[in-house]
Amino acid sequence: MFIDTLIDKVIEKNNPSVVGLDPKLEYIPEHIKKAEFDQYGMNLKAAAEAILKFNRSIIDATYDIVPAVKLQLACYEMYGLEGIRVFNETANYAKQKGLLVIADGKRNDIGSTAEAYSAAFLGSTPLMGEASETAFGADALTVNPYLGIDGIKPFLNDCRKYEKGIFVLVKTSNKSSGQIQDLLTATGKSMYEIVAEYVVEWGKNLKGKYGYSSVGAVVGATYPNQAKILRRIMKEVYLLVPGYGAQGGTARDVAHSFNSDGLGALVNASRSIMCAYQSDMWKDTYDETHFAEASRAEAIRMRDEINDAIGKK
Amino acid sequence: MFIDTLIDKVIEKNNPSVVGLDPKLEYIPEHIKKAEFDQYGMNLKAAAEAILKFNRSIIDATYDIVPAVKLQLACYEMYGLEGIRVFNETANYAKQKGLLVIADGKRNDIGSTAEAYSAAFLGSTPLMGEASETAFGADALTVNPYLGIDGIKPFLNDCRKYEKGIFVLVKTSNKSSGQIQDLLTATGKSMYEIVAEYVVEWGKNLKGKYGYSSVGAVVGATYPNQAKILRRIMKEVYLLVPGYGAQGGTARDVAHSFNSDGLGALVNASRSIMCAYQSDMWKDTYDETHFAEASRAEAIRMRDEINDAIGKK
Repeated sequence: MFIDTLIDKVIEKNNPSVVGLDPKLEYIPEHIKKAEFDQYGMNLKAAAEAILKFNRSIIDATYDIVPAVKLQLACYEMYGLEGIRVFNETANYAKQKGLLVIADGKRNDIGSTAEAYSAAFLGSTPLMGEASETAFGADALTVNPYLGIDGIKPFLNDCRKYEKGIFVLVKTSNKSSGQIQDLLTATGKSMYEIVAEYVVEWGKNLKGKYGYSSVGAVVGATYPNQAKILRRIMKEVYLLVPGYGAQGGTARDVAHSFNSDGLGALVNASRSIMCAYQSDMWKDTYDETHFAEASRAEAIRMRDEINDAIGKK
Repeated sequence: MFIDTLIDKVIEKNNPSVVGLDPKLEYIPEHIKKAEFDQYGMNLKAAAEAILKFNRSIIDATYDIVPAVKLQLACYEMYGLEGIRVFNETANYAKQKGLLVIADGKRNDIGSTAEAYSAAFLGSTPLMGEASETAFGADALTVNPYLGIDGIKPFLNDCRKYEKGIFVLVKTSNKSSGQIQDLLTATGKSMYEIVAEYVVEWGKNLKGKYGYSSVGAVVGATYPNQAKILRRIMKEVYLLVPGYGAQGGTARDVAHSFNSDGLGALVNASRSIMCAYQSDMWKDTYDETHFAEASRAEAIRMRDEINDAIGKK
């Protein structure tokens, strides 16, 4: 099961944090970009190649300390076909290094279409007769719950059949997430509480040996009070926690997302790891030719800080 | 403005319906699939090529009678990189034929990431300095509102800058859409009503010469009663209406989505047009080598049926 493999890796590496490979061109050192733009010209292909080189270096520098990477699909789609090729190559490279790959696509649609998304990212795409082929082959996908269970079911089927996982958006890390997610319903519960109850229900038949389900939830680090409530409602749900680092979430904030077993949450950091070499903390130690070492140093610092905060909770 | 161009085309062609190019292999005639699988082998590339040939024939057979096509991204993503290449080629082919292209991706994320999605589908992707390149270049994109305004704003900026449009999910056509969308809030309004009010607000500065906004909404044909309510709340919002035909929505149902000016809604049909040659209505007239003529006949029948229903409302 996805969730068991994930937790095995979290325990093995003693690290509940993941590297978010959500690259933007401004994150990438000049010497990498220059080489690619010189070779391919000023186009999407050059940009995508620069991203691939950058991603590989960060994976090389962190694969032995993190259990998984999260790839934000938007950051690849913006470079068109070449970007999506690089998404795929990055995912394959990470898998070769023993990392789990979470595709952060927040996909959602009606049932028959959700089936197509699930085939694309988790399952396998049917061809003629019994033949099929894997399109992207991530280990898990983030999904949006706005359409209810029939948009989720196809993913659940593939989670079972292919040992994959999903993380359902419950409470997102952005400022305006409350506009819909915090609305108080007539039952006295807020929208995010109701969605959390759905997530528990949707994942109840996908539990593994640690008692957690392969149906996880996205709960932003920037809302620690809501995280406390959601942790209680979704006891056996793994939380994928964005918003740590550059978005303002602290280790103390994310600690609320863990259970007392020290498990139950996966904290993502994207910018703070990818751009560590540009940060006040690391820029004096590592120049931009040593960006990957800066990312490693920050990934280790983050791991230790979060482990520390969990211990202290 | 996107919305003006759209309405110009709706008026010119006297047709408020669009062809949904949401292909599945089982929709495609055997002779097309066989040719591609024979040439490329049993793989995603052959499947994608079959879809491209199929799409082109349907565009050729309908471009003079419809204002736009809607391309469901999931149906292309499931064929991997080759599928996305074919999405792009189909979109470009449709644009060459004078059609508007609606990318149905239901994208959503926090602000900085929504910016990347918007660059991918509506705007342009920045490279170095002032340079940029278009990744996919659709005319409009469907988006999911669950993250609130900061996930929408980047799209609004590009709608203004590049004359594009978005359609925000409000009430979807699937069975379980009510699980979240119909929830009654403490204010006495349902979730879909509140989202509808947001859509009005988000689009108020993007209105064109007909009084409609480039920020539209998705409202399923399968919920005519909700459509009536939503039509009232969102007077100047163009509704993209899925669910007609194969999903069970009738012309009478979709009539509720129009305003008394005969405008205000765009009805999508995917399966019923793509698979017209397989349908009880057309299979005796057109065999599978004449699938495109069947699609044309069905597109004309649908146009007339909807125009009739609007007149009769």
